[in-house]
Amino acid sequence: MRYNPVNGKIIDELKTIVGETNVVLDPEKLAVYGRDEVSEADWQHRPEVVVKPESAEQIAAIMKLANREMVPVTPRGAGTGLSAGAVPMLGGIVLSVERMNKILELDRENLFMVVEPGVTTGEVQKTAREAGYLYAGDPCSADSSFIGGNVAENAGGNKAVKYGTTSRHVYGMEVVLPTGEITTLGGKCVKDVTGYDLVHLMTGSEGTLGIVTKVFLKLLPLPQYVADLLVPFDDMQKAINIVPVIMTHGGIIPTSVEFMDSLSIKAAEMYLNQKLPYSDAAAYVIIEVDGSSERQVEEDYETIGNLCLKNGGLEVFVADNKSTQDRIWKARKCYAEALRVISPVYCMEDIVVPTNRIPQALEEINRIAAKYAVKIPCAGHAGDGNIHATLLRENRDEQTWHEVKEKVLDEMYRAVYALGGNLSGEHGIGAKRKEALARFMDPVQLNMIRSIKKALDPNLILNPGKIVDVE
Amino acid sequence: MRYNPVNGKIIDELKTIVGETNVVLDPEKLAVYGRDEVSEADWQHRPEVVVKPESAEQIAAIMKLANREMVPVTPRGAGTGLSAGAVPMLGGIVLSVERMNKILELDRENLFMVVEPGVTTGEVQKTAREAGYLYAGDPCSADSSFIGGNVAENAGGNKAVKYGTTSRHVYGMEVVLPTGEITTLGGKCVKDVTGYDLVHLMTGSEGTLGIVTKVFLKLLPLPQYVADLLVPFDDMQKAINIVPVIMTHGGIIPTSVEFMDSLSIKAAEMYLNQKLPYSDAAAYVIIEVDGSSERQVEEDYETIGNLCLKNGGLEVFVADNKSTQDRIWKARKCYAEALRVISPVYCMEDIVVPTNRIPQALEEINRIAAKYAVKIPCAGHAGDGNIHATLLRENRDEQTWHEVKEKVLDEMYRAVYALGGNLSGEHGIGAKRKEALARFMDPVQLNMIRSIKKALDPNLILNPGKIVDVE
Repeated sequence: MRYNPVNGKIIDELKTIVGETNVVLDPEKLAVYGRDEVSEADWQHRPEVVVKPESAEQIAAIMKLANREMVPVTPRGAGTGLSAGAVPMLGGIVLSVERMNKILELDRENLFMVVEPGVTTGEVQKTAREAGYLYAGDPCSADSSFIGGNVAENAGGNKAVKYGTTSRHVYGMEVVLPTGEITTLGGKCVKDVTGYDLVHLMTGSEGTLGIVTKVFLKLLPLPQYVADLLVPFDDMQKAINIVPVIMTHGGIIPTSVEFMDSLSIKAAEMYLNQKLPYSDAAAYVIIEVDGSSERQVEEDYETIGNLCLKNGGLEVFVADNKSTQDRIWKARKCYAEALRVISPVYCMEDIVVPTNRIPQALEEINRIAAKYAVKIPCAGHAGDGNIHATLLRENRDEQTWHEVKEKVLDEMYRAVYALGGNLSGEHGIGAKRKEALARFMDPVQLNMIRSIKKALDPNLILNPGKIVDVE
Repeated sequence: MRYNPVNGKIIDELKTIVGETNVVLDPEKLAVYGRDEVSEADWQHRPEVVVKPESAEQIAAIMKLANREMVPVTPRGAGTGLSAGAVPMLGGIVLSVERMNKILELDRENLFMVVEPGVTTGEVQKTAREAGYLYAGDPCSADSSFIGGNVAENAGGNKAVKYGTTSRHVYGMEVVLPTGEITTLGGKCVKDVTGYDLVHLMTGSEGTLGIVTKVFLKLLPLPQYVADLLVPFDDMQKAINIVPVIMTHGGIIPTSVEFMDSLSIKAAEMYLNQKLPYSDAAAYVIIEVDGSSERQVEEDYETIGNLCLKNGGLEVFVADNKSTQDRIWKARKCYAEALRVISPVYCMEDIVVPTNRIPQALEEINRIAAKYAVKIPCAGHAGDGNIHATLLRENRDEQTWHEVKEKVLDEMYRAVYALGGNLSGEHGIGAKRKEALARFMDPVQLNMIRSIKKALDPNLILNPGKIVDVE
């Protein structure tokens, strides 16, 4: 066995580093840190100890201790991940950044915000908005997820069609390396080719290459006008066929193009306990446009609304104020919670394909769902080819569920790869998809990942057992 | 000595791989491949042989041969680089991608273009434009530089304020690794967190981690309306102070905010041999706005024009058609060539600072220029904090030039770092700035770069001696 257990001496040292009250040993509390939002017990594992540092220096000391004692360290944000990335599958220390929750700076001249990793994404968004700026990262979990986790996962979300994923907004970070050095990569320069792009190697590396202790986020001018369209369709294919039409029509880049299938709509209606419009529809498409000119935003949504009506949309509901917009988005954003009501255990997949392949990908998923008689409600970010397809366990026993899930996943991934797609658009690999990655990724790339991991973390201390296995 | 010379047996094998006519041994021709656009002899070195492969497979065979024989390989695009990145400082093989010059696909449904590395950036731009799309990468050298070189350097350019640098447009690439494996990283998925972000580790790695053989470039809808403003100022500080004002005013993100100082304007006028308007001005600021609505573009340039006039602009020239726009940009784009007329040998620096530090950075550069009596014309991408500051040798002898240059550079870099800036915004480190990087970059990061380089190129075969020295 490569790793040592966390003994009393290590606990004492941890207490010296972060203070006694910030070392958690109570088994019940430890259990909370042994899981994320993945619902299955396979992807839960209790840590031996949880530490809550409050500075890069404390984290550096913990990493040095862990290297010396050969104990794994798993960094953790809010625990809202969907790939068991923050779960300490090999035990050891969970390092929670929950106390590092300060907004350090709002730089109005350079349009930057500098924050600690434990600030919620929602607070980043709100602080920016109140100052007249847009922080354009917007995962559905924004209200609860931490910005540090968003960076670690390169979180996607709802505004990526126009504004890109988290990665595009991250220009710098202070980071503690697996071996305990502290360094600041990038910063407030908007162009920078001074050496390799280490900022974006870190972003999306799922906490395997470093622990982010400070993030430099780019802000944008706040678009003054936003409008959302909710368009129900009586046919899933018609709904999904509209996506490439919108994306290639007349120069408009919408902020979002989302969809929900009929199962997801019903689940949302049940969860929210309120009647949704056209809730018998086969699908919803939700489109957001924004801009600095009211006239322009109106022209854009009229153009898109007309395209939808010409291509099978049953109706176009326009929401151009905050309260109706919130109502439209509530149905979409509650997707994960709503499914839990139907089936407390489920397997949420996060496949991605080139945008024009979305109709075929959904056809394939429906075919596989029928073949194995598994309900797979689908919703997601149609505008960037990212589909959340969730296998519901319902009342299957453990053994049957496991077997059917493996078959469905294998067939689904094969279909996705045949369409030029990939395993994950935004939830990451973590522990959950590691075995699938080993099967589907080009071995040359698996080796590149392994080599880089070993180069930066020679003792394999930081978040081991995630993304790939390394010897 | 780590490396072996290129012997007859290796030449024969190279001929077998790429064909006899694609192996260059003629010393005069070799000399052409021994330099890029850096004007100083220190940064020139003749290769032992040049090969011109036409496929990833041929490149893979060359890399395997080079690893076996311990011969360095330096990849080369159009040779328009400004950091001696494509110069074979240690001899060996230069691998030119000039024959890999095909546009492979224009995908109108997903808005992607797939191209070989030897296509000029200008041809990528033109092909996109003629099909109704925008390829937003736009280095000043676009007419001659290759897209492969743009990717290797993460070229910046004129549209980065709004559209980002080359990196933002690259979603995938086929690449030959230093050890000769071929793999395709990323592709046409616009969201993808399947493993580390290797696409963006490669982008900007200056040909030290892989040779790009195919690039997946994202296209955007072509903005239907573009307008350029040329604003002369009678005071440099006034001119440069306008940059943060424009960048933070009222929600407009301009496409470009460029500037030229008085020396640069004069040089351009001389080079173009045509009278420029207000050519006695202390500075020009050039601003571009674009959009899908004519009215919006007009409103934007009026807002910006008024801001300029209120803040010391002498006049606002508006160019809203191609021919007047070309005239405005010609002066800016000829910067490098124009300086050559004044001083055939010069040292072009490419510093970057946070945007609001540009006024201070220019003050510092002017102070240093005066202190050492060296002319340093400045121009560049003010909107993203990127200044091209060019030390002119004029009629100094070699020894004096070398001495004064080292002093000026050291002082300039120190000033830039004190302002939160960095060595290079878009030209890269290459051979030219390697020694400076070793002095100014955090040793922790130098070590990260070295570790990654060694992990992916254990024999140090691909473009050795660039960015950092590795043992």
